[in-house]
Amino acid sequence: MVSGGGPVGCIGLDWGTSNLRAYRIAADGRVLDRRESTAGILKAADGDFAGTLRATVGDWLDAEPDAPVLLSGMIGSRQGWLEVPYCPCPAGIDAIAAAVRRLDLDGRTLTFIPGLLDPGAGDAPPDVMRGEEVQLLGCGTEGLHGLPGTHGKWAVVEDGRITRFQTHMTGEVYELLVRHSILGRLMDADAPQDADAFDLGLARAAQPGGLLHHLFGTRTLGLTGGLAAGAQPSYLSGLLIGHEVGAALASVPADAPVTLVGSPRLCALYARALAAFGRTATDAPPDAAAAGLHRLAQRLRPSV
Amino acid sequence: MVSGGGPVGCIGLDWGTSNLRAYRIAADGRVLDRRESTAGILKAADGDFAGTLRATVGDWLDAEPDAPVLLSGMIGSRQGWLEVPYCPCPAGIDAIAAAVRRLDLDGRTLTFIPGLLDPGAGDAPPDVMRGEEVQLLGCGTEGLHGLPGTHGKWAVVEDGRITRFQTHMTGEVYELLVRHSILGRLMDADAPQDADAFDLGLARAAQPGGLLHHLFGTRTLGLTGGLAAGAQPSYLSGLLIGHEVGAALASVPADAPVTLVGSPRLCALYARALAAFGRTATDAPPDAAAAGLHRLAQRLRPSV
Repeated sequence: MVSGGGPVGCIGLDWGTSNLRAYRIAADGRVLDRRESTAGILKAADGDFAGTLRATVGDWLDAEPDAPVLLSGMIGSRQGWLEVPYCPCPAGIDAIAAAVRRLDLDGRTLTFIPGLLDPGAGDAPPDVMRGEEVQLLGCGTEGLHGLPGTHGKWAVVEDGRITRFQTHMTGEVYELLVRHSILGRLMDADAPQDADAFDLGLARAAQPGGLLHHLFGTRTLGLTGGLAAGAQPSYLSGLLIGHEVGAALASVPADAPVTLVGSPRLCALYARALAAFGRTATDAPPDAAAAGLHRLAQRLRPSV
Repeated sequence: MVSGGGPVGCIGLDWGTSNLRAYRIAADGRVLDRRESTAGILKAADGDFAGTLRATVGDWLDAEPDAPVLLSGMIGSRQGWLEVPYCPCPAGIDAIAAAVRRLDLDGRTLTFIPGLLDPGAGDAPPDVMRGEEVQLLGCGTEGLHGLPGTHGKWAVVEDGRITRFQTHMTGEVYELLVRHSILGRLMDADAPQDADAFDLGLARAAQPGGLLHHLFGTRTLGLTGGLAAGAQPSYLSGLLIGHEVGAALASVPADAPVTLVGSPRLCALYARALAAFGRTATDAPPDAAAAGLHRLAQRLRPSV
């Protein structure tokens, strides 16, 4: 299947902490097939990554013996299969492709994509990502990119290179507060999304007082009847996302384009938050990870 | 012991969620004896508040059959012994004294002090406190008062009245992050306080990026060797306290005096944070709660 200079098809795996997404990708970039499971690196049975790979895409590997196999995400971390050192920012496709590491699995070469390290400006701490850089390559867009999640990222792309990014612990902090804090006691955590309460939380996030104070308002509104038990999770979500989006927007010029990458449900919440700040977001094309893996496969093709 | 118009001694209990502090107080305000236990309202055996009261200060009650008995804190909440409706801000000693509720216990009158409700300016949610208002009465100082803790308070006192206040969930969020979040995994949570790491966290809190992003820096500094496992709890503490203090100071004029009320260990951390913002704090007199309960006992004495 691999020809000297022509485009190649590939098998791509976006293998994170909690999930594994696999793509069978044609030479022209079309996604021919996809599989998704919860066999993230923490769950892959006893660290048997080879077994998990075969169980997930063994038939694809057999059917396309010459297709490159690319793996991105936490699978390339210290807790993964093969540690790939972080590639420092600014980094575009050339720098990322130059930093891959390879592993031979019974004669098949597996190519692991590096994560990125933002060393941080001035005294700021460094930041890291693994997997999102491939989604960003797949977007092919410039400006600010929001990738919401447990540890959501906001990344700036300039001239095709990821120049800097920030991780926000929004998703994890939300889960902690709902499950373990005093706020969870008055809440109906399983209630459906309440758009009005979410908007109230967004509006509150734009006021002074700070997040640590704003959080407590979820409880006092519950105690005083201002917010029903089922509305409190959405209010809390609005507070946290409002604080995150406000901080992310403050890091870029007011006219920077904004792209959202991720699950439609989360991206819709973030688009609503951006709208509250007067900003319009573009949704990334679906399968941004597959598109990024395909771009890297082209870039890495044997230069015979 | 109670004379018509003269000063009275009293037995005062600052009875919170987790702790019970009892004071035997002379007519001139001196604390003659004190007892402290973890019999907070959540632990008082099966809600047997009367039994807990007798077990804690039964001998004082017998020795001073005429001394008023005052109770402040969460003991006056819905989850406590007798619910006392919140007294709205602004509130000074007169408004608080006018809102007490009484209970007869085998012929002895128990006086429960109300908490305060700040209805919130404009669209801001309301806020509540129970117990801190008595400490504030005991301070007798004006300006901004910080009462650090699990749900720390910042209260403004003007002309002897508590005019407004904010609760910050700093202590609880710290515990959640250390015990349950990904940040805890790289940390030595039992390490002694590290002043340099605390200062680094304070300095980071003053930079842009927002708390949800700053938190993740605790992990990346750990991953990249910038912060040892034993230094990470202090860094996280500096981040959170820095964000709290910054928000609290932003709510008052730059020349407002600042008083800290609470445990010497916590107040020392907050004084260090205030110093990083160029502010000097005064420590409240010890036993501010006892002083406040004594003031209330004088104010409530039978006016024969």
